[in-house]
Amino acid sequence: MAEKKKIVIVGAGPVGSLAALYASSRGYEVEVYELRGDLRNAETTPLNFTKSINLALSERGINALRSAADETLLNRLLAQTIPMHGRMIHTRSATGALSQQSQLYDVHGRFQRSVDRGGLNDILLDHLDSLPNVTFFFQHKLTGADFRQKKAWFEVMNKSTPSSGRAREIEIDFDLLIGADGAHSAARFHMMKFARMNYQQDYIDCLWCEFTMPPTASNEFAIHPNRLHIWPAGNFMFIALPNLDKSFVCTLFGPVELFNKLEAGSDKELVSMFDKHFPGVSTHIRPVDLVAQFKRNPHLPLVNIKCSPHHYGDSVVIIGDAANAMVPFYGQGMNAGLESVRVLFAKLDESQNTAQALAAYTEERITDAHAIADLAIANYIEMRSSVTSPFYKLRKYIEESLDKYLPALGWATQYSRVSFSNMRYSEVIQRSRRQQFILTWILRSSVLVGLYGGATILPYLLSRRSQRFLGRV
Amino acid sequence: MAEKKKIVIVGAGPVGSLAALYASSRGYEVEVYELRGDLRNAETTPLNFTKSINLALSERGINALRSAADETLLNRLLAQTIPMHGRMIHTRSATGALSQQSQLYDVHGRFQRSVDRGGLNDILLDHLDSLPNVTFFFQHKLTGADFRQKKAWFEVMNKSTPSSGRAREIEIDFDLLIGADGAHSAARFHMMKFARMNYQQDYIDCLWCEFTMPPTASNEFAIHPNRLHIWPAGNFMFIALPNLDKSFVCTLFGPVELFNKLEAGSDKELVSMFDKHFPGVSTHIRPVDLVAQFKRNPHLPLVNIKCSPHHYGDSVVIIGDAANAMVPFYGQGMNAGLESVRVLFAKLDESQNTAQALAAYTEERITDAHAIADLAIANYIEMRSSVTSPFYKLRKYIEESLDKYLPALGWATQYSRVSFSNMRYSEVIQRSRRQQFILTWILRSSVLVGLYGGATILPYLLSRRSQRFLGRV
Repeated sequence: MAEKKKIVIVGAGPVGSLAALYASSRGYEVEVYELRGDLRNAETTPLNFTKSINLALSERGINALRSAADETLLNRLLAQTIPMHGRMIHTRSATGALSQQSQLYDVHGRFQRSVDRGGLNDILLDHLDSLPNVTFFFQHKLTGADFRQKKAWFEVMNKSTPSSGRAREIEIDFDLLIGADGAHSAARFHMMKFARMNYQQDYIDCLWCEFTMPPTASNEFAIHPNRLHIWPAGNFMFIALPNLDKSFVCTLFGPVELFNKLEAGSDKELVSMFDKHFPGVSTHIRPVDLVAQFKRNPHLPLVNIKCSPHHYGDSVVIIGDAANAMVPFYGQGMNAGLESVRVLFAKLDESQNTAQALAAYTEERITDAHAIADLAIANYIEMRSSVTSPFYKLRKYIEESLDKYLPALGWATQYSRVSFSNMRYSEVIQRSRRQQFILTWILRSSVLVGLYGGATILPYLLSRRSQRFLGRV
Repeated sequence: MAEKKKIVIVGAGPVGSLAALYASSRGYEVEVYELRGDLRNAETTPLNFTKSINLALSERGINALRSAADETLLNRLLAQTIPMHGRMIHTRSATGALSQQSQLYDVHGRFQRSVDRGGLNDILLDHLDSLPNVTFFFQHKLTGADFRQKKAWFEVMNKSTPSSGRAREIEIDFDLLIGADGAHSAARFHMMKFARMNYQQDYIDCLWCEFTMPPTASNEFAIHPNRLHIWPAGNFMFIALPNLDKSFVCTLFGPVELFNKLEAGSDKELVSMFDKHFPGVSTHIRPVDLVAQFKRNPHLPLVNIKCSPHHYGDSVVIIGDAANAMVPFYGQGMNAGLESVRVLFAKLDESQNTAQALAAYTEERITDAHAIADLAIANYIEMRSSVTSPFYKLRKYIEESLDKYLPALGWATQYSRVSFSNMRYSEVIQRSRRQQFILTWILRSSVLVGLYGGATILPYLLSRRSQRFLGRV
């Protein structure tokens, strides 16, 4: 190119870092501005401790990394993860005994990965540091932007600056600004002054609080390391994801009313709530620590954000949570964010005209962004209660049997399409609706043929005749 | 009260000014912070020229003023207005002749008032200046707020400060902060960091551009002074509201596509569009001025904002456009804003507990805020096209006849309930739905009894029997 174009990225989290990697490999001059201090310094306290430190990484996240990272880098990134082959459902039987039920994610053995946000981010930042055309500016807060003149203003913060004090402000130019600065995006806020952006944010009636389950005395994982553990309790739940250091990051999710009750109640009440609904947890996290962590760690809300468009002209585009924050129940937040980087640069690669490329990105991505946001909400219901229902298990069994024995039919569960494929989220929903229709018919039939209909239907389905009837779904 | 509580109001427009008046009369210490310079100085150019200078003032706006202003002040305010007794629909007949059709707003003679935003605002500000417990701070920009600590930060701007430069920042305390700073409210933005606010903004596919129709050569109104003039054109329209100086403020409303076409087209094309669709306009605004004004005046979007809650704890509440920006087609934006002040202080008067009062305000107001926002959208369809349809006119005739001849039935048009009463917007919708149901029945019957059914039904309705049947609607 005659003159190297300059891409400014706001936000140095996993999504912003990956965008920097994509931009760098295409020869752009890349500047990354981050509100916080260098995320690799241990003393960098997040300004808003509002993000879980553990995330699920699945195929579409890995695919987006794969398209930009060489094998060495990809392997270093994946070394930060622990495979989770399925859910482990913790309940108490009628006799009061602890019960653990393993539900594998995929009949073909594919799995989710539990990943430490910081570890993944550090490796990306280290790698970007070695690239000649990427420069970082930490402690730079976006305070304004003119997306017609392609100028942005950042406040240069330093530790001695009180939050209400005044600091130095710098003005920078750019050809394209990419906002990857999270759900409370300043880039989006300033873009909204230029784009006629339809925007919707909805808080669900659910708060969350993080806990840590330490390794055992003999330094082993306290519970199965390769599972996403769930203690479902109707309209609330407790979950646990494994860490590399053999601890687990756990999260309590529940309605505001439950949190209010627990906050107002005694320590003893908190512990008995755990013992009643989350059997076994207090043997792995000491009751005194449960109480201390509930009091110390923030109780945070969950927001669902949809907006359109995701760009303005040829000068700004928002990606990741900035454009598409979702509730965490499908484990797709970071995956969707990383995928949005891949899709964005695919559009930029396809067209010489940046405005057209960004418009094409918005058009394709919004459909998928809305789709995964809706799926994430729906999965909350499934995780906190449906996982234990007999109907849910029967349906899962039938769907997975179809997936396992009839791959030629193209049958797959919604979960596996979302987590183990790169099919567009919107297409996943369409396919699932078709399968749902057929499955409802199967389930109705199975009731007719008797109590074991769910199992006996399989030989029928395996016949050539039903294959012709079902077609390729 | 033991200690005078301090209310900080952000925004010195009509809604913020009225809130200051209410707060002052209740003995609060009142501080009003306004981003712009003193709105009364002619050289104060609005930072964002995004508000129409003419507004419709109707009963609920006046009622809100009446509850706080003495008779002298109220009369001074009303002297800034021109009555509009109805719409004047401008069309061209099949033969090409100009046609003006007057549609009165109300069979009882009640009317809307066209009011100059600046004139109304100046009088309120002058009056507030005379009150000992109200202080103004112009050129103060809200830059941050801590609604737990009840502190806010304002940047003190001055003319020599370039927009990107640094200015002095002050920190202030408050007991209650009222955000009346418009659709792009900074108060709301900062409140969203504390409240779990569901928020939705939608741009409609419509831009607007303002024009001025000067007085005639003999210094008279160019068209009927006591009408809201409409040139309906299907999916776009032109309207005109009278000014005290005998000019008219006019607005072109149309889809983005129309504006794009006009912006790309020639001057001649713009003028022929006016001549084709807005008959007579170019005899009152010279074609050269039409073109010049279309080029000079901004082409601005219209946004619909719904959010919930409108308050956080006992420390902040948002009112007017900040909480409830609507499209301008029902002429209720300012009226709803002024009414929100009345409702807010009624709740504050009822309870000693500010948090409870604000929660009660949110609960009541959100229903009504959403209701009027929806009505305003619906009226856009009516104004730009339905006003000329025979079905619309027949229905209007029947509804108004019922209103006129059967006041005992409590029958009233939706328009008159919105514009000439203080009934809650949400109740207006409920009542209208009931009437709609009955009216549909009447219209169906009228079709059955023949072409003149719409007229002949009246004697029947006047019978005692039908009064019993209809009940009190």
